[in-house]
Order: sequence, then C-alpha cells, then structure tokens
Amino acid sequence: VIQEEMRIGKAIYDLAAELFPITRSITGEGVRETLKIIQRELPELTIHEVASGTKAFDWTVPMEWNIHDAYIIDPSGIKIIDFKQSNLHVIGYSVPVDTTLSLEELQSHLHSLPEQPDAIPYLTSYYKRSWGFCLTHNQRQSLKAGNYRVRIDSVLKEGSLTYGEVILPGATSEEIFISTYVCHPSMANNELSGPTVVTYLAKWLKGITNRRYTYRIIFIPETIGSIVYLSRNLEHLKKCVVAGFNVTCIGDDRSYSYLPSRAGDTLADRVAKHSLKHLSPEFVSYSFLDRGSDERQYCSPGVDLPVASVMRTKYHAYPEYHTSKDNLSVISAQGLYGGYNAIRLCLHCLEQNEILKCTVLCEPQLSPRGLYPSLSTKNQTAIVAKMMDIIAYADGKSDLLAIAEIIKLPMWELFDTVKALKEHGILAVCSNNKPT
Amino acid sequence: VIQEEMRIGKAIYDLAAELFPITRSITGEGVRETLKIIQRELPELTIHEVASGTKAFDWTVPMEWNIHDAYIIDPSGIKIIDFKQSNLHVIGYSVPVDTTLSLEELQSHLHSLPEQPDAIPYLTSYYKRSWGFCLTHNQRQSLKAGNYRVRIDSVLKEGSLTYGEVILPGATSEEIFISTYVCHPSMANNELSGPTVVTYLAKWLKGITNRRYTYRIIFIPETIGSIVYLSRNLEHLKKCVVAGFNVTCIGDDRSYSYLPSRAGDTLADRVAKHSLKHLSPEFVSYSFLDRGSDERQYCSPGVDLPVASVMRTKYHAYPEYHTSKDNLSVISAQGLYGGYNAIRLCLHCLEQNEILKCTVLCEPQLSPRGLYPSLSTKNQTAIVAKMMDIIAYADGKSDLLAIAEIIKLPMWELFDTVKALKEHGILAVCSNNKPT
Amino acid sequence: VIQEEMRIGKAIYDLAAELFPITRSITGEGVRETLKIIQRELPELTIHEVASGTKAFDWTVPMEWNIHDAYIIDPSGIKIIDFKQSNLHVIGYSVPVDTTLSLEELQSHLHSLPEQPDAIPYLTSYYKRSWGFCLTHNQRQSLKAGNYRVRIDSVLKEGSLTYGEVILPGATSEEIFISTYVCHPSMANNELSGPTVVTYLAKWLKGITNRRYTYRIIFIPETIGSIVYLSRNLEHLKKCVVAGFNVTCIGDDRSYSYLPSRAGDTLADRVAKHSLKHLSPEFVSYSFLDRGSDERQYCSPGVDLPVASVMRTKYHAYPEYHTSKDNLSVISAQGLYGGYNAIRLCLHCLEQNEILKCTVLCEPQLSPRGLYPSLSTKNQTAIVAKMMDIIAYADGKSDLLAIAEIIKLPMWELFDTVKALKEHGILAVCSNNKPT
Repeated sequence: VIQEEMRIGKAIYDLAAELFPITRSITGEGVRETLKIIQRELPELTIHEVASGTKAFDWTVPMEWNIHDAYIIDPSGIKIIDFKQSNLHVIGYSVPVDTTLSLEELQSHLHSLPEQPDAIPYLTSYYKRSWGFCLTHNQRQSLKAGNYRVRIDSVLKEGSLTYGEVILPGATSEEIFISTYVCHPSMANNELSGPTVVTYLAKWLKGITNRRYTYRIIFIPETIGSIVYLSRNLEHLKKCVVAGFNVTCIGDDRSYSYLPSRAGDTLADRVAKHSLKHLSPEFVSYSFLDRGSDERQYCSPGVDLPVASVMRTKYHAYPEYHTSKDNLSVISAQGLYGGYNAIRLCLHCLEQNEILKCTVLCEPQLSPRGLYPSLSTKNQTAIVAKMMDIIAYADGKSDLLAIAEIIKLPMWELFDTVKALKEHGILAVCSNNKPT
Repeated sequence: VIQEEMRIGKAIYDLAAELFPITRSITGEGVRETLKIIQRELPELTIHEVASGTKAFDWTVPMEWNIHDAYIIDPSGIKIIDFKQSNLHVIGYSVPVDTTLSLEELQSHLHSLPEQPDAIPYLTSYYKRSWGFCLTHNQRQSLKAGNYRVRIDSVLKEGSLTYGEVILPGATSEEIFISTYVCHPSMANNELSGPTVVTYLAKWLKGITNRRYTYRIIFIPETIGSIVYLSRNLEHLKKCVVAGFNVTCIGDDRSYSYLPSRAGDTLADRVAKHSLKHLSPEFVSYSFLDRGSDERQYCSPGVDLPVASVMRTKYHAYPEYHTSKDNLSVISAQGLYGGYNAIRLCLHCLEQNEILKCTVLCEPQLSPRGLYPSLSTKNQTAIVAKMMDIIAYADGKSDLLAIAEIIKLPMWELFDTVKALKEHGILAVCSNNKPT
Repeated sequence: VIQEEMRIGKAIYDLAAELFPITRSITGEGVRETLKIIQRELPELTIHEVASGTKAFDWTVPMEWNIHDAYIIDPSGIKIIDFKQSNLHVIGYSVPVDTTLSLEELQSHLHSLPEQPDAIPYLTSYYKRSWGFCLTHNQRQSLKAGNYRVRIDSVLKEGSLTYGEVILPGATSEEIFISTYVCHPSMANNELSGPTVVTYLAKWLKGITNRRYTYRIIFIPETIGSIVYLSRNLEHLKKCVVAGFNVTCIGDDRSYSYLPSRAGDTLADRVAKHSLKHLSPEFVSYSFLDRGSDERQYCSPGVDLPVASVMRTKYHAYPEYHTSKDNLSVISAQGLYGGYNAIRLCLHCLEQNEILKCTVLCEPQLSPRGLYPSLSTKNQTAIVAKMMDIIAYADGKSDLLAIAEIIKLPMWELFDTVKALKEHGILAVCSNNKPT
C-alpha cells in the first residue's frame, strides 16, 4: 500500500511539475496547453471554447489574453525584471506597453509585499484595463532613480475562454460533480495541486467497474469559468448532481481542511466531514463565510448545488499563498497523495452509500448463518457489535453514512460487513435508495 | 451625536421627574393626571375609560380608588406617618379608616422591611378590602406603646379604569405593539422609566417618514390594564401584531437585559437578542420563568402575542425595587437614553427587515458597477466581504436579520450596503416580504 | 414511609432469595417453577407454552432442556465439580455426557476467568450442541493430570418454551408494556431483581383504582422469549403500547442508570430521564449502542416499540455480572426498593400525564378562588410561582411532563397543584389527550 501511495503521489507531483512553468490566465494559450497535457493523461477530456463576448448571467466572457514577453531595463541598461524568469512578474491581463518612464512614474505600476520582502506577489486585473509589474520588495527597495525602459508584449483580442470536461457515465444518471481550475500561472498548492489530483481521481474512477454514479469533472478558469459553465448547464446540474467537490489547495502536507456548502448539510458536506473526521480528526473546519473559490458560484442563491471543499491547507491560510513562494517545494508527493486519498475516500463512500433495511423483524439469528460465536461469553467482539449495530439501524430510512455516524465508525470499515450481511440476505437495499 | 444623546436623555429624565410625585394606582385621578402630561408631549394620545364592573376575561374592572390624605399620630401627638411626605406610606387600595388603636392593634396594619431598614416598601391590596401603612423598619422599631390616631382619607367608588393609546399609522396594517404601565406611585426605574422612554420612542417614530409598520402604543395599569386591553382588542392584535415589546425598568445604567416571549423565537425575540448582543454583549438574558410584568398576559396561552422585554436592570433584580429607594437617583439621563436607544435600534431594525433576493444567478459582476476594487489583491476588504456575504445569503427566504446573524454583524451596519445593492439592482425585496 | 420502603424492599428481597436456587434456562422446568411462585404472588399471571419448533420471525423455538445432575470426579475419586453445589457449573443447554477423559481432553470443555480467579463464569450454548463445565480459575489451576469421570445428566427433547403474562386492564386500551426475564440460573442482580421488582410493581398497579392505562407485563426468557412474544403480539403491541420498560439489573444500590429506546425520545424515554434526573441526578445515561437486553428486539427496525430501560447498575457494568459472584449479597432490600420506586415513579407520572389547557384567556384571577395571597409583596412564594407556571404553559399542546421539564420541577410535585387548578375549573384536560 505504501508503495502504491508513493507511486501515485509521485505521479501527481510529476504532472504538477510538468504544468508548473506554463503561463496560465483565465483565457489564452496557457490554458489550452495545460488542458492538452491533461488530455494526454485523460483521453476522455473534451475541450470547449466559449467566444469572447458571450453572456453568462451577469458576466461576459472577456477578450482573450496572451503574453509573449515582458521586461524592465534599469537606467544602467540591466534587465532587472524579466517575464521569462517568472511569469508572476506581470499583472495578469496587463495591456501592451512599450515606453520609458522615470522611477517615480514607474512606482505606480509596481507591486510588492513589504511584509514578505523576498516574495513576488500574484496579481491580476481582468476587468479593468491596466498594466503593472510585480517584484520582491527587496528588489523594489534597491531601484535607483532614473529612466526605466518598460515593455509588455501582450495581446488582448477577441478569442475564447477554454475549459475541459470529462463525463464518466455510471449506472444511474445521478451525478457527482468535481470542479477544479486552471487559470493560475506558476504556483503549486494554489493551483496545480487541484487539476493534477483531479486528473488522478478521474483515472481511479475509470478503474471502478459498475460505477453507480455518473461523474462530471471540469477543469475551468476560476470564477468566470464556473459562471460560464453554470450558465450552460444549470438545469441539468440542478436535476442530476447529488454531491460535488471544488478541488483546490490539495497538495501540501500541513493540514486537512473542509469548507461547507452554503446549505452546510448536503450529502457532500456529510461525507466530507465524516471522512475527514476519521482520516484526520484534527482537520480544520471552516465556515462558508471563509469561502473564496468556485463554491461562491456553485452555492449562490438559485444555483444551490451541493458542493463542498475538501482541502489540505486552504487558500489565504498559508504564507506562500498567491506569491512566488507557492512553488513546487510547498507541495509534495505525500501531500498530494493525502489530498487525493481524502477525496477518493469521499467518492468511495458515496458509491457505497445506500439506504439499507433489515429483511427480518427482530434480530436475525446469526448462528445458523455462521456469523455469530456460539458461546455467549462476557466479551462480545467488536466485530459482532458492528454487525448487530448495522442491523439495528438498518431501518429503511437511514443511509449507511448516517449509520456510520451513529455507530461512530468510519464508513469504509462497514463495507465488508454490509457485503456479508447482504450475501446472507439479512440486509436489503431499499427501493427508494436516494441518500439525501 | 453625544449632544443629541444628552439632550434626549435629559428630556426623558425631566419628564420622569415631573411625573414622579403623582399618586398613581391601577385606577384613579393619578393615572389621568399622568396621561394628561403624556398627552401634552404626545397629542396623538387618546384616553380611554372602562367602567368599574366591566368584565375582562376572568377579571372585573375594580372600583376606582382615590386618596386625599393619610397619617398616623403617635401617643405624644406627633404626626409620625404622613402620606403627603410619601405616597408609598399607604397600601394601595386601602379602605378609609378613622380610628384610634393601641400599638399592638396597629402593628398588624404596619409593613416594613427588616432587611432594608431605611426603605419604605411598596404594597397594594387591589382585590381584598384591607388597609395598612408602610414605613421604614427603623421607624417602626422606634414606636412606643400607647394609642395611635390613624386616618386614611380614601374613596373607593364606582368609577373607571383609565388608559392611553397612540396609533401611528404606517404603510401596512401590520403592527408593532408597545406596552408600558402607569399604575405605580412615586418610583422611578419601576415604573416611570417605562412611560417616559415610550413617550420619546413615540416622538421618534412620528419623525420617521414612510413608516412601514403601524405602531400601537399603550399606557395602561399593569395586569388589569393589559387584560382589559386584550379583552377589547384580542382578535385585531392576533391578526396584526408582528412584534411587540413590554417596556419597563428601562432607566438605570447598571445593565441591559432581555426577557423572552413564551414562544422564545418570535420576531421580537430575534431582534431584541440581536440588538442587545451587538449593543452590549454582556446583557443579561432571562428565561420566561423569570417573567413578572404584562408579558404574563400577552404571552398567555391563546393570546400568544410576540411580545418580548428589553430592559435595563429588571424588576426584582435591583435592591431598590418596589421601595422608596427606587427614586430619581436610580435612573439617569444616560441610563434612560441607553434604554431608549436599545429599543429604538430594535424598531429601526424591524422597519428595515426585509426578505431579499439576489436578482442574478451566480455572483453579480461588481466591477462595472463601481462596487469592487479592480485589482484582486491578497487583502479583500471587509467592505467587499460584507457586500458579497449579503448577496450570498440573499436567497429569497432569509430576512436581513437572519443574514446579519449569519454573517455576524450588527444589522444596522448592513443598511447602507443593502441600499447601495438595491440601487444597483443587485438585490430586490421579495414579494412575500413577511419576516417571521 | 421509611417503614413502608423497608417492608416492600424486604418482601422483594425475600422473593428473590426464594427464587435464587432454581435452575432456570430459556426453557425447562426451572422457568415453570419460577413462574408458579410468581403466580402465587400474582394470581393474574397466565402461563403460556410455545412448542419446540415453532417459528418466530427468523428464529425457531429450541428443544426444551432440563438437567438433573452433573459432576466431575478427579483422578483420586473426589467429586470436585458438583452441579448441586452451583448450577453455574454446567454450560446452559449442555448435551448429556457420561465419559472419562484425560485432563488434557477435559480442558477444552472447561471455562474459567483468569482475571476473576474465584468466580465461576456463567455460560450457555443454546444454539450449538455442545457441553462444558464452568469453574473458578483457582480450582482449574489445581487440577492434576489423570483421568476424570465426567457426567452431565441433562435432557434435550421436544417440549416448549414457557412464559408468563399479566394483563391489568385500564380505562383505555392504550397500554404500558413491562418486560422482564426468567432464564438465568442462580444470579441475583441479573436477573432475579427483574422479575421480583416487576412482581411488586404489578401488585402496586393492582392497587390503583381508576387505572388509566392497560398494563401488559411479561416474564419471558431473554431474546428468544421476546422474539416469540413479539411474533405472537406484534400488531397489537404496535397499535396499543404508548410506553414500555425492559426491567433488568434493578436490585443493587450502587447507581441508577438509563438506556434509551432506539428512537431515544419516546414517552418512555422522556419519563425515564425526567424521573431519574430528579430522583438521582447523577444517574448514568447510556447510549442505545450500549444495549444488551430485550430492547434489542423491542426497538428493532419494524418493531419500533417505545421501550426504554431504567436500571440500577447495568449488565456489563459491575464486576460480578454473569458470574457466581452475582449472588444475593449484590442486591439488597434498599437497592431493590430504589429500583422499584424509580419505575413506579415513571408509571405514576405516565398515569398522570395529560395535555392541559387553561380555560380562560390571560392569567386567571386567583384571589377570589382563594388561591393567591391578597397582599402582593416582594416575595412571591414558590407555590404561587409553580401554579402560575403550570397555567402559563398549559397551552393545549404540551403534556404535563413537558411542562415539568420547562419549569424544572419533578412532575410529581405538580400533581396536587394540577388537581386544585382542575377543581377550580382553571385547567381542563384536552380532548386530544394523547401524550407523545
């Protein structure tokens, strides 16, 4: 098992490292290049283009942005800022610039973090035409007076917003929805942990024979991408999705955390809290007031999808967040595997979550079925207790997740017992098998 | 603002001081004199008389009681008890007496407080014909043997029970109900703080243009007055009142306190708890088991009005209660203003409490409306968070009070933001705008 | 009162002592002998026989087992184990044996408790043909090598399962169900405290004139007996039983304890928790996960009877449980009386539990009815507070048990006040008088 963990964790990490250098934004070639690499791993991925100017609820798909180079040359002719060294140096969606400025004029276009003097901040200006450079505060402090040559070789033009989608059909039309985003340039926990872990979750899901649920997995730009996706699929999603997860910040190994849906008690919330409680009892439980990713859209009034977040260390909750420090050293094979495993456990529980009913009145007689020790001693084993507890609560109303909560065991420790009790005809799945 | 507070607090205090000397009881000239003074401040006040003998549910309006003088002359000819010195000296509703008694005989008609030896207790005997004097325990201890001349010049006759009523019409027929009482002789926190604060709340309400609710404000004798008022108005009140407050003990500055309706979760309870929590987090929260004023009638089974109490220091909870020590030094301009302000905040919140719905699916795009900083930095401001939180919970089901509770801000800090969001068409008031 | 307690406690103890020596099992002459003695105390008891082989849900009534003698003679000819010394020496339902074995061969048929070396364990093998002896670990350690003469003179044959039933009719067809068991050989707290306390509860119930509820009281073998009884009476029980108690481990004086029904909030649970809280605030409150007696059947899915357990020290929770140490020194007249009294209080509360409604709107006028002190002093008495609190919550929806919980008094302290208020016409019983 450990070796398997290492193998998967390493593979996720390698994919993150491969995607790391690409300059992504909410539109542009970086997103397409990223999705192509994911498509190589996941041939089921279809790539969709939505033209600039398309309306999506209150929003409009923006112009497509691409950038080829950018730099600042100081008064002594030295290239002190070079986009090719770090794509965080340029504010996302900066308009083209080619000029010479005094240091004073330049300062209003520079951004740095005095409290983190050796980190380059990550900034964007998607909806207000602007330009600017980000740099370490240390470097900024060292700038000398004089004229600076400034160049941003970017293009803003009619184009499209690009996203990827994988549908893995299951036995029912009920769907599990998984969303992750591909719009950040070179940062690791936020965001490459998301699409890479989701890629490997999709690989795992493909390996499940007799999937019960249909899985809808999307790789989108954050905010505008989820809004566009919802505007195209809302009625279907509202009808079909029984649980969903927004996957982000899932690659470090400092903590596990959970952020609820707005409703707070959906099937996604229940399974996320249950799994994390047993996987990592000290997990951090946030409020929906702490939200900051696409659950803002999925859980907005009138959309109301049952989408929760299972994370490692949450955005805003670690010092490297949204800076050049959120590099490949923040994530690890172990951290990525842990996040992958936490969500996989949730999905595994959802697949196995059924409303069960004991087929006989009163306790069934286990002895003739070979399920019960014949000698009633003072010490009933935990195995018998588990079996009898499952039977006692299999009332045709509670789902197995609720039973696991009541009897205080991880749901996954019940699967073998439930299987045995079904095989012996003691438990049956209810016809109204719709967990809520 | 401070000056305004001082001005209003001073005015309320002055009114209490003017009303203080009057000998009130549950009927009689003292009530009429009190209501006349309030009518001078509040010309909308109508004065109602209900004849002795009128049935009111299980009760009957008693004979009207008036008193002109009363005294005790000791064996040496000195007037040791004089009603003109303190109207608390005579038990309310004492029958006329004109006799001479030995000290032994007199003792059974004397009442004092051994544990508060320098306070005159306040006692009444409304429904059992009786007479008696109240005095300090110190004075009682000093009485010498001998014959005492005793006189009570009171009149019990067919007359009427008097109460005052102000109706301030609003845009809707839904009513906010405010009740206070005018049946105690010279005591300050209980009771003159009540009618004086309510008088100034009515003045403030009159100044609100476009009042949403109709306000029904009554000045009644406690218990029998509320029962009589309910017997005349019950069906209307049950149909129209959405929230109500019994106003008493609202003039000292030692604490804030809250006593719930019997149901405990009415709109009045919700707004009272919310306002006090943010105004004075250390407020005292009582149980309905601690009740003792007219909520006993308003919340009785079958009446079930949504009436809560917002108080400063509650009856029974301060040492001067129901004694001559509850004089004008117990209340203060600051204390009265604090109580006035607490209930005014409740009323202000009720006026602004609406069920809101976001008009667009997904988060609205705030940038083009000039509501959002164009540069997405690490530090989202609290103002943006407040705006987005209001929008996120404006689901067409929660009222603004519920949203304020969820997002943990005083409701009154949301009003400007809600106004701006309405003006930008992002929030709309729901047609079923009936907070519960 | 103390003398009455002593008298009843002593009588229960004496009955337990009389029943102690009998060799009971889930079938057989020991059960019949036990029920005959109970029938002497309770002539209403009817005795029922259910033939071996009868189906009961998933179970089948087993062969009847009787035993006349059993012993082991050691290599030196000494009878070291003698059933006549302790009927715990033989595993219940042991098949007949008459043989000689080496010590090594014998060991696999011996059972002892290393951690309680001077206690004989109690073991059974009802549903797997087997035989064995139980002995102290000390004795087992002293056994010498050699051949052992082993004899079990038992009979397993077609016969019947025996149980007793008492029906005490009441004014309504609604039933209170009381179940206890008679299948353990010589042990005191578990089990003779159960049938003896229940016998005296039935005597007490017989003495109640105008019983409201019908009482159904059964003395059965545990597990198979409750399953058989349910299989014969399920529809009736589901229709009629409003509350029930499984009575076991009710005779020591170390603690009180409560184990809920599966639903957890039935009338039986409410009254049990209320009574124990006021009787013994430190009572132990178990979870249904701690269950181990016939509530396993009564609360199984589809059966769902409102059956809770009120106990002294629970099975599994005291060291003597299921060993020869659970002898008559574990129980006491005081302990038995305490358990008897706890359940009697529950039954008494159930009989008096009504949905009450105040007959007048607003507070009733108590003075003319002689119920209220005429002089309103600072100190309202607790008696008036109780009266007014009952009236305030008599809303035609809450039952008296709910009111007692709200006003934080033992329900039995309300009976006199309720009676007086009814007599004065202030309270009336609701027509839908069905507590839930």
